[in-house]
Amino acid sequence: MREIGSVGFTEKPIPEPGPNDAVVRTTTALICTSDSHTVRGGIGPRTDLTLGHEAVGVVHAVGSEVANLRPGDRVLSGAITPDWGDPASQNGFPSQSGGPLGGFKFANSKDGVFAEYFHVNEADANLAKIPDDVPDDRAVYCADMLSTGFMGAEKGNIPIGGTVAVLAQGPVGLMATVGARLCGAGLVIGVESVPARQKLARTYGADEIIDFTTEDVEARVLELTGGTGVDTTIEALGTDATFRTAIRITRPGGTVSNVGYFGEGDYVHIPRADWGVGMADMTIATGLCPGGRLRMERLLRIVAGRRVDPSRMTTHEFAFDEMERAFEISDKKIDDVIKVLIRF
Amino acid sequence: MREIGSVGFTEKPIPEPGPNDAVVRTTTALICTSDSHTVRGGIGPRTDLTLGHEAVGVVHAVGSEVANLRPGDRVLSGAITPDWGDPASQNGFPSQSGGPLGGFKFANSKDGVFAEYFHVNEADANLAKIPDDVPDDRAVYCADMLSTGFMGAEKGNIPIGGTVAVLAQGPVGLMATVGARLCGAGLVIGVESVPARQKLARTYGADEIIDFTTEDVEARVLELTGGTGVDTTIEALGTDATFRTAIRITRPGGTVSNVGYFGEGDYVHIPRADWGVGMADMTIATGLCPGGRLRMERLLRIVAGRRVDPSRMTTHEFAFDEMERAFEISDKKIDDVIKVLIRF
Amino acid sequence: MREIGSVGFTEKPIPEPGPNDAVVRTTTALICTSDSHTVRGGIGPRTDLTLGHEAVGVVHAVGSEVANLRPGDRVLSGAITPDWGDPASQNGFPSQSGGPLGGFKFANSKDGVFAEYFHVNEADANLAKIPDDVPDDRAVYCADMLSTGFMGAEKGNIPIGGTVAVLAQGPVGLMATVGARLCGAGLVIGVESVPARQKLARTYGADEIIDFTTEDVEARVLELTGGTGVDTTIEALGTDATFRTAIRITRPGGTVSNVGYFGEGDYVHIPRADWGVGMADMTIATGLCPGGRLRMERLLRIVAGRRVDPSRMTTHEFAFDEMERAFEISDKKIDDVIKVLIRF
Amino acid sequence: MREIGSVGFTEKPIPEPGPNDAVVRTTTALICTSDSHTVRGGIGPRTDLTLGHEAVGVVHAVGSEVANLRPGDRVLSGAITPDWGDPASQNGFPSQSGGPLGGFKFANSKDGVFAEYFHVNEADANLAKIPDDVPDDRAVYCADMLSTGFMGAEKGNIPIGGTVAVLAQGPVGLMATVGARLCGAGLVIGVESVPARQKLARTYGADEIIDFTTEDVEARVLELTGGTGVDTTIEALGTDATFRTAIRITRPGGTVSNVGYFGEGDYVHIPRADWGVGMADMTIATGLCPGGRLRMERLLRIVAGRRVDPSRMTTHEFAFDEMERAFEISDKKIDDVIKVLIRF
Repeated sequence: MREIGSVGFTEKPIPEPGPNDAVVRTTTALICTSDSHTVRGGIGPRTDLTLGHEAVGVVHAVGSEVANLRPGDRVLSGAITPDWGDPASQNGFPSQSGGPLGGFKFANSKDGVFAEYFHVNEADANLAKIPDDVPDDRAVYCADMLSTGFMGAEKGNIPIGGTVAVLAQGPVGLMATVGARLCGAGLVIGVESVPARQKLARTYGADEIIDFTTEDVEARVLELTGGTGVDTTIEALGTDATFRTAIRITRPGGTVSNVGYFGEGDYVHIPRADWGVGMADMTIATGLCPGGRLRMERLLRIVAGRRVDPSRMTTHEFAFDEMERAFEISDKKIDDVIKVLIRF
Repeated sequence: MREIGSVGFTEKPIPEPGPNDAVVRTTTALICTSDSHTVRGGIGPRTDLTLGHEAVGVVHAVGSEVANLRPGDRVLSGAITPDWGDPASQNGFPSQSGGPLGGFKFANSKDGVFAEYFHVNEADANLAKIPDDVPDDRAVYCADMLSTGFMGAEKGNIPIGGTVAVLAQGPVGLMATVGARLCGAGLVIGVESVPARQKLARTYGADEIIDFTTEDVEARVLELTGGTGVDTTIEALGTDATFRTAIRITRPGGTVSNVGYFGEGDYVHIPRADWGVGMADMTIATGLCPGGRLRMERLLRIVAGRRVDPSRMTTHEFAFDEMERAFEISDKKIDDVIKVLIRF
Repeated sequence: MREIGSVGFTEKPIPEPGPNDAVVRTTTALICTSDSHTVRGGIGPRTDLTLGHEAVGVVHAVGSEVANLRPGDRVLSGAITPDWGDPASQNGFPSQSGGPLGGFKFANSKDGVFAEYFHVNEADANLAKIPDDVPDDRAVYCADMLSTGFMGAEKGNIPIGGTVAVLAQGPVGLMATVGARLCGAGLVIGVESVPARQKLARTYGADEIIDFTTEDVEARVLELTGGTGVDTTIEALGTDATFRTAIRITRPGGTVSNVGYFGEGDYVHIPRADWGVGMADMTIATGLCPGGRLRMERLLRIVAGRRVDPSRMTTHEFAFDEMERAFEISDKKIDDVIKVLIRF
Repeated sequence: MREIGSVGFTEKPIPEPGPNDAVVRTTTALICTSDSHTVRGGIGPRTDLTLGHEAVGVVHAVGSEVANLRPGDRVLSGAITPDWGDPASQNGFPSQSGGPLGGFKFANSKDGVFAEYFHVNEADANLAKIPDDVPDDRAVYCADMLSTGFMGAEKGNIPIGGTVAVLAQGPVGLMATVGARLCGAGLVIGVESVPARQKLARTYGADEIIDFTTEDVEARVLELTGGTGVDTTIEALGTDATFRTAIRITRPGGTVSNVGYFGEGDYVHIPRADWGVGMADMTIATGLCPGGRLRMERLLRIVAGRRVDPSRMTTHEFAFDEMERAFEISDKKIDDVIKVLIRF
């Protein structure tokens, strides 16, 4: 990204690690829709910023204080790389270390991963070694897609056998669907209109699909839940309209768990009456893609244990030098794209 | 209440208890601002409805299945009297039993407590015996004021030594201030403009007071918290403006805990950017005055143990036959009223 | 059960429901090893007590206050039938209502379900209607096996992708294995020596099996977890030896979640050093088979949604008049028995 | 400490900070009974180890990567100084970073604070600046006494208005008593036989005192709690006898929260029947003195806000060159000692 609205290749030197850091040689990366958000100016102006935050690679160099990694290790970095000593991390919210959303560094406060080499702060804490039985093209999904999607379920207070609606079945929503199953949901309802995504949602564990273009989502959810609404709604789109739906279809005592990035408008609207005039024991939870070595190790274990095959979401693959075409496909949602994988 | 906008005395027969119920002879009651809301039509039209939901009294009669109470017992009922076998109660949210806010029966789905006798469903589960060392004029505050105010703190995830702002220091806000102290807050900031309430807030444990009519609440909270915002904000008013302030002054990873009744507008507005575009690990919690024998016993223990003297909030006292004057004072907020107590 | 050590058929009248109760005509039941415990005197002397606590049936009669059930409804009762208004239930622990383990009434404080008809207290709260697509021989497993086994996982604080060991793969242990998967475990280790149970454990989701008769459980668990021990151990046997193993194989910060009934000895022994001299941030959790309509509805949803087929555990089936032979097989663990199902 | 059983002064060079570390010039310290445990060999053999883990001081030097501290800052270090990037810290248990109890470094895996200078790892994360209005002789209590004692309450799941017993009223037990009040307990029962400690317990908030040398603790607790036992027992001694009492006096659904160091025996004994044969929904929680900048800041806020004056526990004061006499008084519990403060 050269500036808002403009992308292209740039030559930069290989980064140098500080005492606690590592530099990783990239092998595989994924394009995320938030890369497009960034290019359009979603996080403000940036100049000559390397994009990308989902990648795996091989350790190239480590700093003097790094103890657990050495050059040649095959590693995964979370999309979020927290400062682990920060008070926000000590408070249990490492994604907020260094300020609101401050753990989000790649392609935000420093260069991202769409490069032959990328820099990782606090390498011992932020890099996980990839088990031999997990190939790169699956491991790379742990960086953001699994971590964010699963978080939606984890923060949703899903009881074993509970009912869950997942609003939108893009890649994060699909992984939220998997997450709802992994958290014990007895009924998972996916809301989605694109046929290819509906189909994938079913393979990932959605019991029911509601097409919001042809059905009344609220009426259908009430019908499927005996009139009470779902225990948990995962908002995986980040629009005011889906958020309002989320409040409406959630039962008293239930949770709306947001994983969407809200990119527009001054306000997000809570429908007052459906919210029980502020007294329905409803909880609205939010979060940002948990990172860190432990998180990544656990997600890799999920993949190694064959609980989910995230590579089914890879609809397109390109070499790094085809990046501009790859970005266009992802950005314009061409050809039923779900995720575009880049090989280095 | 005869109809919307009209109140007065009416003769009704003494209620009869069903098998699981009790009838209580009222001795002391409190007027709540929500009684005024009801008269103005806040919960829809009602005809010949007895108002009031905060009362203590003496058991008059019990049903055949009631095991732990007998006529003559001095008892406290929560303002909310749940159906304890309902799925919502089994789910941990008894205030939502029988439907959204369904545990709220007094002066809503049945006659309230501003009468010589009132009826209590599931008496064994909803009435607590009052210890001898707790007088009626303190015990009666447990029914709603302590239960609601404390809930704001309990749902606020306050860490020991954490920072808390309480927006509005009416009777519920004052008890939220006490609740924040009881939950271990290291700094409690009360926001209030009325001098008498500011003063009472300090006696109830507020470390700092911000007068929103003369100070910038957001700037002052940031100053008092080293720039991060508070761990927890308790919204004790229920207006769109205070709710927006609540989001703005709460740190990433923090909780906005609502105890206010939102009475106006189609939507409550979340300021998008201050909410971290839905990714700040912020939680918005809500609830409705927990009821039940165990809750009341615990609140009575708090009063018996002299953790708080709620009777300091009683600014006015009347006999039952002066009810109309009493109601007018409470309704029009005459004479720096905080709470009006009625003796039977 | 006539007295300790003696069982046989007895004629008793059909029970009558009180105002809040129901009487159910039994259609299918399961024999539990705890029935054998009871006969041997595990819960003290009993005279002419009907055994059994796992059953489904059809509503025969309801009391005057029962609102949601009518004769002919096909229903499931939890093995535990709490008093929902009791303070212990209000405290979140309905299985302890009416005193320690007081929610356990069938074949304990009143007649059980091995009879043509059985009585259910607080019927609206304790009976769930069985969906049409769930046959009796699966639904009946929800009463105790799923509820108890899953509880072990739910109380185990299993992180998504975490590691779990389940000690013993009897029917409750097998359902704890399923529960661990439903709670998001990334690695489930079953400890069991009986080949038929090992095999079933694999079909129910165990990733690894340790045979404690041929392997060193502690060494093998450390090997499988990179030397840290598991996040969660579910103790599903209830012996001092397995409990000590549980402490030893659980990581600092981990949880030992017990679902076993400890039937022998004055003390259960915590190995002091492995417990981190009381400072390892380890939690020991316990509980008793959650009951109630909501719990049963959620478990039935798990079965209806094909997350688990519990009927694979049915190794033997008998008619009610073959009860004595059925009991002998279960009691003496004849013929690789796992569960014995009784048809009425 | 020269070796097991032998203490005395030794000359050592001033330590040098690594890139992330600081060296602090000691101004005030406290002697802990665990220092005596260490000298007696409680944590194994040590040679020429500087003792002490409770201290405040002034920053003397910082490493190249330290951002928030500079020489001259008045600072407090927790007794536990975790590795914040370690997986155990990411898991929420920083005291277990680097292995079981691995966050405990002072006078364990490296030199302690009874010296003119001491070294602090990850200084930005482990040191808190002391507010001007908190004097050293109060701040120093936050390092261990407040952090450990309060933890007992925080892990105890105390409901607002709940009942709590604190077994032993030594300095940690006294702070557990304060912690129980800060967590909203409605009744705090202190168990202690030493008159001076009983008296201090009352000033710190114990509502009732039981002298176990003249009263039956179990009978008295049942009497004070209406026969149910307490919601929470905090075990603040660490002996098998008090642990057994803790299980006996805790209600079904309650929590035993341990803060004691168990120094003797191969096993700690759970009384099987009182534990509800493993089914009473009882939880046994443990932990180790939480450390870190955020924790220390919160505890300092508690002291600054005058929730507690820990300096009332200082029964003796000495200069650093009187250390041997000071240690003898603490070790032999001479002269009703509670805490001995050392000035540098």
